[in-house]
This record gives sequence, C-alpha cells and structure tokens, in this order.
Amino acid sequence: MRMIDLIEKKKRGETLDKEEIHFMIQGFVSGEIPDYQMSAMLMAVCFQGMTPEETSELTWAMEYSGDVIDLSPVAGCKVDKHSTGGVGDKTTLILAPIVAACGGRVAKMSGRGLGHTGGTIDKLESIPGFCTSLDRETFFRIVNEIGLCVIGQTGNLVPADKKLYALRDVTATVDCIPLIASSIMSKKLAAGSDAILLDVKTGSGAFMKMPKEAAALAEAMVAIGTAAGRRVAAMITEMDIPLGRMVGNALEVKEAISVLKGEGPEDLVSVCHRLAGEMLLLSGKAEPESVEEQVTEAIDSGRALERFKAMVKAQGGNSEAIDHPELLPKASFTHIVKAKADGYVRHMDTEGIGIASMLLGAGRSRKEDSLDYGAGVELCKKTGDIVHAGEPLAILYASQERLFEESEARLLASYEIGDEKPLLRQKILARTDADGTKFFI
Amino acid sequence: MRMIDLIEKKKRGETLDKEEIHFMIQGFVSGEIPDYQMSAMLMAVCFQGMTPEETSELTWAMEYSGDVIDLSPVAGCKVDKHSTGGVGDKTTLILAPIVAACGGRVAKMSGRGLGHTGGTIDKLESIPGFCTSLDRETFFRIVNEIGLCVIGQTGNLVPADKKLYALRDVTATVDCIPLIASSIMSKKLAAGSDAILLDVKTGSGAFMKMPKEAAALAEAMVAIGTAAGRRVAAMITEMDIPLGRMVGNALEVKEAISVLKGEGPEDLVSVCHRLAGEMLLLSGKAEPESVEEQVTEAIDSGRALERFKAMVKAQGGNSEAIDHPELLPKASFTHIVKAKADGYVRHMDTEGIGIASMLLGAGRSRKEDSLDYGAGVELCKKTGDIVHAGEPLAILYASQERLFEESEARLLASYEIGDEKPLLRQKILARTDADGTKFFI
Repeated sequence: MRMIDLIEKKKRGETLDKEEIHFMIQGFVSGEIPDYQMSAMLMAVCFQGMTPEETSELTWAMEYSGDVIDLSPVAGCKVDKHSTGGVGDKTTLILAPIVAACGGRVAKMSGRGLGHTGGTIDKLESIPGFCTSLDRETFFRIVNEIGLCVIGQTGNLVPADKKLYALRDVTATVDCIPLIASSIMSKKLAAGSDAILLDVKTGSGAFMKMPKEAAALAEAMVAIGTAAGRRVAAMITEMDIPLGRMVGNALEVKEAISVLKGEGPEDLVSVCHRLAGEMLLLSGKAEPESVEEQVTEAIDSGRALERFKAMVKAQGGNSEAIDHPELLPKASFTHIVKAKADGYVRHMDTEGIGIASMLLGAGRSRKEDSLDYGAGVELCKKTGDIVHAGEPLAILYASQERLFEESEARLLASYEIGDEKPLLRQKILARTDADGTKFFI
Repeated sequence: MRMIDLIEKKKRGETLDKEEIHFMIQGFVSGEIPDYQMSAMLMAVCFQGMTPEETSELTWAMEYSGDVIDLSPVAGCKVDKHSTGGVGDKTTLILAPIVAACGGRVAKMSGRGLGHTGGTIDKLESIPGFCTSLDRETFFRIVNEIGLCVIGQTGNLVPADKKLYALRDVTATVDCIPLIASSIMSKKLAAGSDAILLDVKTGSGAFMKMPKEAAALAEAMVAIGTAAGRRVAAMITEMDIPLGRMVGNALEVKEAISVLKGEGPEDLVSVCHRLAGEMLLLSGKAEPESVEEQVTEAIDSGRALERFKAMVKAQGGNSEAIDHPELLPKASFTHIVKAKADGYVRHMDTEGIGIASMLLGAGRSRKEDSLDYGAGVELCKKTGDIVHAGEPLAILYASQERLFEESEARLLASYEIGDEKPLLRQKILARTDADGTKFFI
C-alpha cells in the first residue's frame, strides 16, 4: 500500500477502506508517512469529506495509536462531558459535582486553554494546591470514593491526534467536520467513559459560528460514539455571548462555587441544570420526569457543593477556599471599562472578549505561555442589557496596570451598542442523539 | 505575510495576488516555507484552480527562482519547441535541422527520459561521442555558426520547479493544468528563446488522454508565453499511436536520419513537416503560402541532413554515423513478437509500448537508472494495419535475452486486435494560439 495512491483516491472523491485508514494513521505516527503527504491528504479531505464509516475508522485508528484507559476499576457507569470550547465556560466545575451528588461517576480528563478559550485544568489549578497530575490508581480511588476526579491528559493518549492536530494547525485544514469530530472523539473514546455528553458551542465565541455547522459536527460525533458502543448525546449551546459574567481562571472558580451554592447568573445556571440532567440521563441515574428535580435538590441540599469540596481536598487543594473565595488568587489591579454611549448591548464579539481576558494574563497565546490565575474580565453588561454612557461595561483584573490599555481597547471593540433591542436566542439551541438533531426554536 | 493565510485563501477559492505568489515561491525555494505547507497549497490549487493571471505570476516567480539564459549573443530570432512527451517522439532531431536549414535559429535545452517517455538528450547521446553538456560560449558559438545546438539543462535553471515537481510527484498533485503549465513554461521562458512551439500530445501514450484536456493545457501555456512577450503557438498532436515505427534511443536516431533523407514513415514525416513549418512561421523565416515548399526543399536538397551532421560534428559526435547508421549502438539480441490472432490492430496502449521499450533497457523507471542505447522496439504493425496470426507485430532489441519475456508480455497486452477496422484520427488534431484553439476535424 502506498500513501500517494490513498491521496489520489481521496482526491478523486473515493472512499478509503478500513485497512487504508489504519495504514495511513500508523504510518504517520511512526514517521514513515511524511508530513507533506499527510497535509495533502488532509486538504483533499477538506474538499471531498469523509463518509460516516471513514470517520469512525479514522477515529478508532487514532484512539488506538497510543494508550487507552480502562476505567473498569471504577464501579458503575462513568459519564464524561466535552465542550468544543467557549468563553466563560466553567460548566465542568459545576456539572461534575452535581452528577456525583446524584450518584453518577465522573472520571474526567481535561485540557488546558489556548487562544481565546479557557481550559478546565487551568481553572482547577488556580485553587491553591490543586493537583491535576495523579497516577491511575489514585485517580480511580478518588472517583470510587467521592464520585468525581478531574485530571490532565496523561502521557501517551492519542499521539496520532497530537501529531495530526499540529499539522492541521499550520496547513489551514482545521475547519473540516470529519477531522474535528475524529480528533475530539478519539480522545473521548480513549478516555474510557461509558457515556459521553458533548456540548457543541455555536456563535461568535465558538469555533462553529452557525448552529447548522454545530449540528453537523454534533451529528458526526454522536455517530462515531454510538458506532463505538458508547451512550452519546450532544447539546448545541449558545456561545454568541460569554457564559456567565466571569472570564478568567480564579474568577470562574468563584462563579462556579456561587452556582453550586444556588446563586450565580441565570444563563449559566440554566445551561448547567440542563447539561447535568442530560449527563444523569445518559448514565442511567435519572428518569426524564424527575431529573430536573434531582438536579435542583442536589444543589439546594448543598450536596453538590460538598462533592466539589471533597474533590478539591482529595486532589490536594485548599478546600477552605470554597467557603472563603478570598483565599483564591486575586489580581493586584482592577480597571473599570466604561460605556461610551447609551443604548442596548446589541452584540458581543465573544471571541474578542476571550482575547481581552487572554491579554490580561488569563490565557495563553502560545502553548508555553504562563498564566496569571487572578487575571480576567468581569462582565457588568451583556447582550440585551441597557447601558448608559459612563456606566461600567466590565471590570478588568490584572497583576500589571500596563496590560489594561490593549485589553480595554479589545473589549470595547467587542461590544456593539445601539438603539434597537436585540433578539436573544435561548441558551440551549438543540439536542442531538442517534436519531438526529432537534432544534428548540 | 504568512503561508497559512495564503493556503486558507486558496482553499476558500480566492485569488492570490502577485506579491503573495512571489512570497510563496521564494519562501519555498529558500526553505522557509516547509514542504507540508506547500503540499497543502498544491492540493488546494488542484481543487480551486488558478486564474490566468495567477498562473502567469506563478510561472514568472518560478522562472526567476534561478538563472535565466540570455540568448542575445545568438543573432536573430531563436525558436524553441517543447513536447509534453510521448512514445517514439523523435521530432526534435528532425525539426531543428530543418529549421536551421531554412535560416532559423534553434538554441535548445532538452531533458532526459523518465518512465514510458523518451528524452531528446538520451537519443542524441546514443551517437558515439555526442556531448550535451557545453559551456554557454560554446553553445552560443555553435548556434551562430550552424544554426542549431541541443544541450542538457544546466545547473541552476528554475530550481523552484525542481523542488515543486519533486513534491507534486509524491503528493498526487501532478495532474493540475495551472501547475503543469507553469512548470513547463517557467523552464521554456528561462531558456530564453523568442518564439516557442508547444507540441501537446494527446491519447493513450500521453499525459493528457483527451484532446479537450490537451487544449486546456495548450491554452494555459500559450496565455503564459504571450503574457511574457514571447511568440507562442501550440499544436495538439496524436499520441494514441506511437509516432513512427522506432522506440528506443539509437533506433529513433536512425529513423530521424531516414526522415531527413526524405524517407521514413508517413505519420512521422507529416507531423515533422507541419511542426517545422510552424516553427519557421513563428520565427518569421517563412510565409504561410510557401512554408510547406521551404520545408520540402530543405529535405530534398539534403540541407537539413547536412545541418544535422554539422551539429553532430560540432558537439563532438561521430558524424560518420549519419551516413553509416551501422556505427550507432546496436543490441546484441533481437526477438520477434508474433500476432496471436488475425484481424485489424484496433488500438494500441501506447504507454504500454513505451514501458515495453523501457523494460528492454531503453528507458528509466527511476532517475538513476542507466540506459542501453541500442535497446528498444521496432513496430511492424500499428493501429489500422491488417495482421495475421504468426506475423511479426514488433521486433524487440536488447543486450540480454532474459529481458524479452516481460517486455513481450507487456507489448502483446498493449495491442488490441479485432475484426472491425478502426477509425484513425488525423495526426495533428488542433492548433492553439492567443486567439484560442482550432480543431481540424
């Protein structure tokens, strides 16, 4: 078998078979197939696409390119969740404790943030002492004991995706649904959970700008997971507006704690309730008619917050900080960004807001950048709010005053203020399962 | 400027501007743009194409990536000719002497053969002593003195094409008209002639299997050359059947000599007369009403043969071999391939016949292979001929008897013999100039 013949085949719009796809991925990972052939193949895939069968085979070839995690030492159904990335998306910190409080099991591997989106691992590491690199036995033990544990991705998980993604990133072959779906799902399958809830973001802060694209990605991922024998569903959620009011690591932990206390901003609360319910349904720990009640009860009783505190403690973090959020890292300086005009906030360039937060030190523009856990943005006004000139739009947090200027400019440019009241979309736009996508409009 | 943005732009179907194309080619030649980005770009070009302006800019960027030859030391209009490659195509050996005999100037760089197609340099080097690597001054002096000289490509001519072609060859991005046209024309422009006749082959032995594709390539190349201020025309010629009866280096030299003596097979003679006439018209050495007469006279008078002999002598070859072709390299063994059935030769897989000749030692399957100048195939029957079982179809020539078996099998598989008489196409199918393509049907 020769890679050039496979490129030619895909270029002509033909379908690659199982053996061809495995030959390609194994050869690429081992270095026998050079980058320049793989990038030609990736570009051909961008134009010709892949069938659901090809996408599944690609995912499995990637999944088995390195270690796969056997979660059988953890009793019961393990449920995972994946977000395609947004701004202010701290849902994992809220969902995992709720699900654990309702008897679910969350043995989760998360990633770090890059560019305008944050990462769960970074947020958790802003809690003093919190450790995200645990050995397997400790990971399994914590999940068995308290129902949840969140760690960083370990050593040799899906090396094919690491190598492929690095190549896609520099060859303009990132935005291609079969490639995105196989990249995400290979990692989710290798991480070993029985059930997976996918949170596909759409809007100005998301990779998928349009709900229709988000639905296509959701369907591709659900098809892969279902074919692999997992229970999978996807929610298509709003990311045209940042989720909640806080963007930045310790700021988001504080906001997550407030939701677990039954407080917090309404948009974040409603999304978390629905996603937690879906995770419980997927893991067989709830029935549709009573799931909302279970979730509410887990919060109102304080059991969800207590699970979060137990996880922080088990992972070496200072659990005092949960009751005393002033113990979390704090920025030395704050700066209020004031509105320049009266009107409605008509639109937010949510990616721009993520970048404003990154510029303050809360995110990375390159993988090797270090983070300032206390930095970030607090949004005082969001899309749909009425604002008067001179009123605070947002508060910036940083360790160095010199960072405010560029961040403020970026933030102001991300707000569109005008006379007409904007139409607001609901937060959860659609749900996808093996039967297709149902839009809630 | 970043290469990834240019890939993205081409992927979306947008047009690259002059600066972007030059940035891309300069960066690729210098090594700043890696192969994996260029191969993604090449694949995007295969799908999205290039405008005539983009193709011209690409050609010029490639032309000026290395040395360009200044032919001004040669007096008068210099006319070049390029064939896209075929089987039995020895026309350069015949055309250059005819044109020189009529007052034209042919200062030509040619290439070596690869795969099923032969190369003019290999054919000339089969003449004992013939030298194809001359310094510039000698090259110019010979053309000034005798009107023609044919040498191999020198050092740093169009390095961008060498590097790009090597990459296209392994990434399934060869068959793309803007890339083929810019590759050929960058070399023709850099070689410095004022007028260029392109011979675009079509049929089973050619890269362009269909006349329509050949016309598209011819039009792209004529547009590039015209935009560069050269006089350019293209002839689309038949390569569904090998040209002439001889395939193999010394065998083809013998056949070329016979045409220059006013003999030779009719198909080869008619193509050479027409192409020689077009070269004379392009170089302003003939008028349409009398060009055919001039060409005939150059042959009948012996002046064309005498020019060929003068070139062989000037380039160090044994010019005795022109009058005594038995002095040319000869194979030690011959083998007659006999027809298995009665009927008409209905079709020849001309590429297969080129490969049969290559298998005997007359061609290279890899660049580093050495050649047996005496080896090759003499075709006794061609498409349209009547044949009886047991009659010779072809004679194979080789230095080793063990080579006959595989070559004979390949040759027999290339002949289709049947009851119905095939329709024969004329040898010259169309002519392309700046006004478009005119088919002669």
